[in-house]
Amino acid sequence: MTPPSIAQQLAAKQREISVAEFFERNRQILGFDNPQRSLLTTVKEAVDNSLDSCEEARILPEVTVQVQKESEDRLRVSIDDNGPGILRREIPNVFARLLYGSRFHSNRQARGQQGIGISAAVLYANLTTARPARIISKIEEEEAAHVLELFLDTQKNQPRIVSEDVLLWDRPHGTSVELVLRARYVRGRQSPYEYLRGTAIVNPHARLLLIEPDGTRVTFERATTDLPPLAQETLPHPYGLELGELGYFLKSTKRATLAEFLTKDLQGVSARAARELLAECGCAAQRPPGSVHSEEQERLLAALHRVALVAPTGDCLSPIGAMLIKRGLRNVLGEIRPEFYAPPVSRPPRVRGGFPFMVEVGIVYGGALPADQPVQILRFANRVPLLFQQGACAITSAVTNLDWRRYGLEQKGGSGMPSGPALILVHLASTKIPFTSEAKEAVAEDPEIDREVTLALQVAARHLRTHLSRRTRRDLAGAKFEIILKILPKLAEKTSHLTGRPVPDLTPVITRIMDVVNLDARLARDAAGLRVEVEAVNYTPRARVLELFVEIPPEAMTGASFDPAPDGTDPALGRAWWTLPKLAPSARTRLALTFPPKTDLDASDLDWYVAGVDEAHLLGADPLPGDWDVRLPRMIVEAAEAAAAEGVANVGADEEVDYDAAESSAGDDE
Amino acid sequence: MTPPSIAQQLAAKQREISVAEFFERNRQILGFDNPQRSLLTTVKEAVDNSLDSCEEARILPEVTVQVQKESEDRLRVSIDDNGPGILRREIPNVFARLLYGSRFHSNRQARGQQGIGISAAVLYANLTTARPARIISKIEEEEAAHVLELFLDTQKNQPRIVSEDVLLWDRPHGTSVELVLRARYVRGRQSPYEYLRGTAIVNPHARLLLIEPDGTRVTFERATTDLPPLAQETLPHPYGLELGELGYFLKSTKRATLAEFLTKDLQGVSARAARELLAECGCAAQRPPGSVHSEEQERLLAALHRVALVAPTGDCLSPIGAMLIKRGLRNVLGEIRPEFYAPPVSRPPRVRGGFPFMVEVGIVYGGALPADQPVQILRFANRVPLLFQQGACAITSAVTNLDWRRYGLEQKGGSGMPSGPALILVHLASTKIPFTSEAKEAVAEDPEIDREVTLALQVAARHLRTHLSRRTRRDLAGAKFEIILKILPKLAEKTSHLTGRPVPDLTPVITRIMDVVNLDARLARDAAGLRVEVEAVNYTPRARVLELFVEIPPEAMTGASFDPAPDGTDPALGRAWWTLPKLAPSARTRLALTFPPKTDLDASDLDWYVAGVDEAHLLGADPLPGDWDVRLPRMIVEAAEAAAAEGVANVGADEEVDYDAAESSAGDDE
Repeated sequence: MTPPSIAQQLAAKQREISVAEFFERNRQILGFDNPQRSLLTTVKEAVDNSLDSCEEARILPEVTVQVQKESEDRLRVSIDDNGPGILRREIPNVFARLLYGSRFHSNRQARGQQGIGISAAVLYANLTTARPARIISKIEEEEAAHVLELFLDTQKNQPRIVSEDVLLWDRPHGTSVELVLRARYVRGRQSPYEYLRGTAIVNPHARLLLIEPDGTRVTFERATTDLPPLAQETLPHPYGLELGELGYFLKSTKRATLAEFLTKDLQGVSARAARELLAECGCAAQRPPGSVHSEEQERLLAALHRVALVAPTGDCLSPIGAMLIKRGLRNVLGEIRPEFYAPPVSRPPRVRGGFPFMVEVGIVYGGALPADQPVQILRFANRVPLLFQQGACAITSAVTNLDWRRYGLEQKGGSGMPSGPALILVHLASTKIPFTSEAKEAVAEDPEIDREVTLALQVAARHLRTHLSRRTRRDLAGAKFEIILKILPKLAEKTSHLTGRPVPDLTPVITRIMDVVNLDARLARDAAGLRVEVEAVNYTPRARVLELFVEIPPEAMTGASFDPAPDGTDPALGRAWWTLPKLAPSARTRLALTFPPKTDLDASDLDWYVAGVDEAHLLGADPLPGDWDVRLPRMIVEAAEAAAAEGVANVGADEEVDYDAAESSAGDDE
Repeated sequence: MTPPSIAQQLAAKQREISVAEFFERNRQILGFDNPQRSLLTTVKEAVDNSLDSCEEARILPEVTVQVQKESEDRLRVSIDDNGPGILRREIPNVFARLLYGSRFHSNRQARGQQGIGISAAVLYANLTTARPARIISKIEEEEAAHVLELFLDTQKNQPRIVSEDVLLWDRPHGTSVELVLRARYVRGRQSPYEYLRGTAIVNPHARLLLIEPDGTRVTFERATTDLPPLAQETLPHPYGLELGELGYFLKSTKRATLAEFLTKDLQGVSARAARELLAECGCAAQRPPGSVHSEEQERLLAALHRVALVAPTGDCLSPIGAMLIKRGLRNVLGEIRPEFYAPPVSRPPRVRGGFPFMVEVGIVYGGALPADQPVQILRFANRVPLLFQQGACAITSAVTNLDWRRYGLEQKGGSGMPSGPALILVHLASTKIPFTSEAKEAVAEDPEIDREVTLALQVAARHLRTHLSRRTRRDLAGAKFEIILKILPKLAEKTSHLTGRPVPDLTPVITRIMDVVNLDARLARDAAGLRVEVEAVNYTPRARVLELFVEIPPEAMTGASFDPAPDGTDPALGRAWWTLPKLAPSARTRLALTFPPKTDLDASDLDWYVAGVDEAHLLGADPLPGDWDVRLPRMIVEAAEAAAAEGVANVGADEEVDYDAAESSAGDDE
């Protein structure tokens, strides 16, 4: 056999591969490689579609997943929703054609983006049981629902309708998909139960019901009736635009001039920026976009990446928001009773490769979480839990590359999976999530995403560290208090007895030994709302002018009232601050915060900071961090300056002046 | 906005997604997510194609990869081969159309199987630099080469020819592809260099040349001129066949009867099995295949999975083979100078989901491999190195799930990545590798694959353990010898001096202390060939009848000669055995093995075993393992029986009889 005939032979074998054939043969890529995972992928694709369509239609979702056993290795799975329904003519393509969908070409956050998922599940059901998918869908303006039975023709990647009927349905609108597939039902890890539980955490507006093969019904109730804001369509942003894409945009735009194209087809290009861009690439504003040749395109792209543009807006994204992350976690993790929820972190939107994205992080600590095991990572992408391929995911590598020992968790060598009673939630929201495969189970490595996840983790982790060190200090101080209050009087009594002298007043001594300013915040909820009372006690032997700062979730600032009125507030950041009246040793002062009845806050939502007392002398609050760019009210500064000018002598009015004078030489911050 | 209009709006947005658009937007799935990885993926796809076509055309491959710097973030990459060339009419589709190829529908092992790879590289080049791919290809029967410049039209997934020419080329046949893309050149981990080095290990018949941007030329010379056997096309095997596939086969076959379909369209179904199958599903042999209805199909499939069929043949696979794995490793890892190459393991073919596969494993130990770091895993699929996604790969999880502490490597807790100066090579060969994504970087989890990799690893690891324990014992025995030979005479001399009595003969004492049978194999190579001389010395205080066994790579048995002639051989397993003449204490005997000059063996290729002496009394060989199903020659058994019947008394002829009589009561295996 000589080479020429081989070239001929090879040529004879060349042929087109149908996309459905490709995925049938490589179904592990779509998440259908074993019976357990196939069930999960099916449930996930259907539920994700239900939640997407409810969100678009502004409907509070109610989704039921029912799994029934057909035979040893076959399950019947149905997913029902109260979504807007699907027009009759679109049903076949939506459910039985790969690479067909409404969300691929849109430039906003959605769960489904590929136009593959549910059709892949239908393909898998066809392949393993040769049974058609049964779809029922009803839209509000029609009387009856359409019922279709469908196969996916693999050679053509086209739907094949087996039967069709209409049905009077018991609901105004909605969709139901029923499949019989080779699958296995499990509970626990990587199960429909775990998927729905995760979905409930990051979709606190959804009501989800799972009916298991043995008839058990598990309901995940919604934790809010507020729908998430609708993610808006946006134009592509020039950051990360590729040369090939720019060329395609220029060729296919309907704008008449280059100037119009730049300002109306792209995001973030102002008229001024457009003029600068045109000058840089040497093109006239009136040029038809299609006439820009390749060298000019290269110059234009370079200019687009260099010139200052308006940053991308985040309204194409639908983040969960700090408050709802916490509410979702609390709603679903209630049984764990964690001792601490770190204030969730929601980073501002960024852009990678032209696609806006943002990162949210929540950390939960303590309670029934196992202390001697690796932390749990809950990964989410566009409000969808990721249950497989944890080891291949950029979210996981951001977690494992962080040195968690600095934040109070155990970790061998400062990298790898940390261990301890913690749960780390990371949500990545984007108009396009870079998944490692069509199964959408892991996020591909990307330096921009890694950076944002890391920054968000650090912020949340700092809260965790604060909590842990505060807990330690409180425990230590508590133990110290106890010892002092028990032992000292006894010691004094015995000593007096031995020496025959009277028992002295121990209060100044105790104050001297404790030497802290103690802040104690208590929450009380009644019909009038949530009242937070804060008491500051000066257990130090000198008079103090304290500056007190509180950080509150910004959403909770609306409707909050403060007594006394703060010296300043920053509603956007959720901050308020006071200069407290000068506190003599052993003196105390109170202030109160009141929130409307619906406010969902607990003690760990409020962070208290004090300036003017160093960490070693502070209990129940932290020193004001350096990154607080707060301009102190002038009166505070003045008061501080005045206090400094007056010197310690002026504090002599206090009864504890002797102690104070004695301490003052060592300074406040010894 | 009411739900009905939403359903209408959503319907209006539904549209088909071009497969090229899909992959352009999700290019991370194809391995193009950052400049470094994009270069590697490009090189890999092109070189894999070159090696595949050379293998099919039975040409010893010569492939040149050249990378040149165009500008800061642009590289020009060209890959040249001496393959059979591509017909003019196929060039556009092969290089600029996704899901088009010759190997997807074939049922045999190949590097490329998806019809995506090289077109994806062209797509990426178009996208990032708007430059066309330049293809030159010449087939032997044409005078000139064709030169085409191509774009891939993303909207249509079709090639677009920019320019076309012919060229008088300096070679009889071959193909060259040149791309300009946004990419970054690195050396070291996950680089073209690492990829080519790995390729050279598992393709020892290929000559690979890398020309780096700075002009450095790296050549990986071939280690053999034998082409790997051509993998043969096979029929699908019924094991793992799905109901949907069976239905499609029945509908589309050209066979006239069901009996013909079963025996001629499927692998492994004999005429007898076909009769049994037909009886089980209740169908007549003469039924046209297309008439078999769905219930009968279900029964037929169940029967196909139950009835005993001929196991799948492995000739659709192209394993590397134990000898060549070793030669490839040695050729490329020469500079590491490992102290031990475990005899590579090549498992028999198995089937999963209808696709045959097999696993090969090699372990290398010591030399310059770092002792205090995790072992290196070299993963290969169909002779292609896998460089990314190690954490997501089934090969990695098989390695990390094994308890390597039992085989002499360090491993915390008996799972996870072992550490030590070892390198583990795993090659998975299959007509269809279940990759986790189109980038073909990790093998999806699969219980069958996991089982085979684990079994192969265990066999290789046992060899490693044997080597390590033998080394330890040899070191210990050597130290013991040294001490005895140095100290005992001195002690005896001093004692004699003190007591005034003559120095005694120490030989019997030394023998008694050592109490081992020592086997020493030495290799000598000259023009006549490779000569292995083995000396057995009986350092035990009783006479011994030794049965000696050797295991040699089966390929090396051809042309080997033995002196004296063995009592038996098993050429298929590479085994030979002798009963040695009875050895008195301190007596020795020799035997010699001679191999032809070309034989590529070293000491670690030969495993020596001895029966009749227990482990504690054996040095330089191992006790015969229980899994050796060797029928000992009758004379050996008789001799052993006779010796047992005669008892120890009969050994009295030996000069050391006193020792022996004294020891005999304790038995041989104390």
